[in-house]
Amino acid sequence: MAPSELLDGEPADTRAAIMAATYRALCEHGYANLTIQTIGDEFSKSKSLLYHHYDGKDDLLLDFLEFMLERFETDVFGEADADADDRLESLLDHVLCDRLEEERAAFTQAMIELRAQAAHDPAYRDHFTRSDQLFHDDLADVIRGGIEDGVFRDVDADRVAALLLTVMDGARLRRATAENDAAIRATRRELDAYVEAVLLVDRTS
Amino acid sequence: MAPSELLDGEPADTRAAIMAATYRALCEHGYANLTIQTIGDEFSKSKSLLYHHYDGKDDLLLDFLEFMLERFETDVFGEADADADDRLESLLDHVLCDRLEEERAAFTQAMIELRAQAAHDPAYRDHFTRSDQLFHDDLADVIRGGIEDGVFRDVDADRVAALLLTVMDGARLRRATAENDAAIRATRRELDAYVEAVLLVDRTS
Repeated sequence: MAPSELLDGEPADTRAAIMAATYRALCEHGYANLTIQTIGDEFSKSKSLLYHHYDGKDDLLLDFLEFMLERFETDVFGEADADADDRLESLLDHVLCDRLEEERAAFTQAMIELRAQAAHDPAYRDHFTRSDQLFHDDLADVIRGGIEDGVFRDVDADRVAALLLTVMDGARLRRATAENDAAIRATRRELDAYVEAVLLVDRTS
Repeated sequence: MAPSELLDGEPADTRAAIMAATYRALCEHGYANLTIQTIGDEFSKSKSLLYHHYDGKDDLLLDFLEFMLERFETDVFGEADADADDRLESLLDHVLCDRLEEERAAFTQAMIELRAQAAHDPAYRDHFTRSDQLFHDDLADVIRGGIEDGVFRDVDADRVAALLLTVMDGARLRRATAENDAAIRATRRELDAYVEAVLLVDRTS
C-alpha cells in the first residue's frame, strides 16, 4: 500500500487530518524546507491547532513517523495467506521497482532526510531503531513461515532478513540521493540470483 | 585506509589544511550543527581564508567531498596485486565491521547527513551520482579481475557490484541512524553465504 493511500479519504480525526497535511507538505517541500507554516498551508482547519498540539516541526514529524509506522505494519508484506516466496517477491518488487512515480520519489527523499536526522537527534534515532526492529521481525517471520511450508531452505531467518532490509535501505538511500536507476535494476536482478541460490528450495532435484 | 589517515601529517597546502579542519569539525559537530565558524575553530591559519575561498558551508563541504573522493579512490580496494576474493573480503570487512570506533562512527554519521542533502540539493546529488559510479566501476573491475583469474564464477560483474554497493550503503545508513549492531553483523554473515553460493568458484568439485 502506498503512503498516499494510508492517508486517502476523509481523515477520521484532527490527528489524521494533520498527518495528511504533513504527508503532502513533505512530498512538496522535503524536510529541509519544511516549516509548521508550510504544513499549515496544506491543512484545512485552523493552523493554531498545529501549534497547540506540537512543539515545533520535529515534534510533529516524529508523531507523523509513528502514525505511518502503525499503519504500514500490517500492509507492507502483502496478503498474509499468500505463499512466503510470493510475499517476499512483492516486497522486493515494491521497494526495488524500476522507477518510482513522482510522488513516491519525493516521499522517499523526504524519508531519507528524516532518517538522516537520527544521526544527531536521539528522538529520531529511537524511532528508527524501533521501526528497524519491527520490520526485521516481520520479515524474519515471513521467512520462517516459508521454511515451515517447505518453500525456503533451512536458512537462518534473522540473517536473511537482516541482509534484505540492508539492501532495501541501501536502495532507498541510493535512489533518494543519486541518479542511478540502472544500479537499482541491477541490484534487483542480482537479488534474484541470491534468492535462487540461497533461499528457494530447489524444485528440480 | 581511514579518512583520518588521509588527512594525517603536515597538510601540503592551504586547501589540505582546510580539508583537515573540515574533517575534524564534521566528526565533532556533524552536518546539522556545522558552521564556517566551527570549521574555523579547527583551523590554525586565519579564518578569513575560509570566507575568501568558499561561498558558505555547503560550498566548502562539496569541495571536501571532492577532496576525499580523489584520495579514497586508490585506497579503498586494498592492494591491487592481492587476489580478487581477498580484496573483496577486506572491503566488506572494512565497511561491515562489527563495531565502528568513535571517530569513524561520527564521520559515518556526518557523511549520511551530507548524502541526505542530495535529496534536495542538485550539487550534492551530482557529487554522489559521480562517486557512486566511480565506486561501482572500481568494484566491477575487481570482480571482472576475479573472473579472469578463475577465482570467481562467470557472473555479471555489474550486477554483483550493484548489489554489494547497495548493501554497503544500506549498512552505512542503518548504522548511522539506528542502534542495530546485531543487524550489521547478521548482514555481514549472510553476505558470506551469498559470496559462497553465487560468486566463489567451488574448489571442492
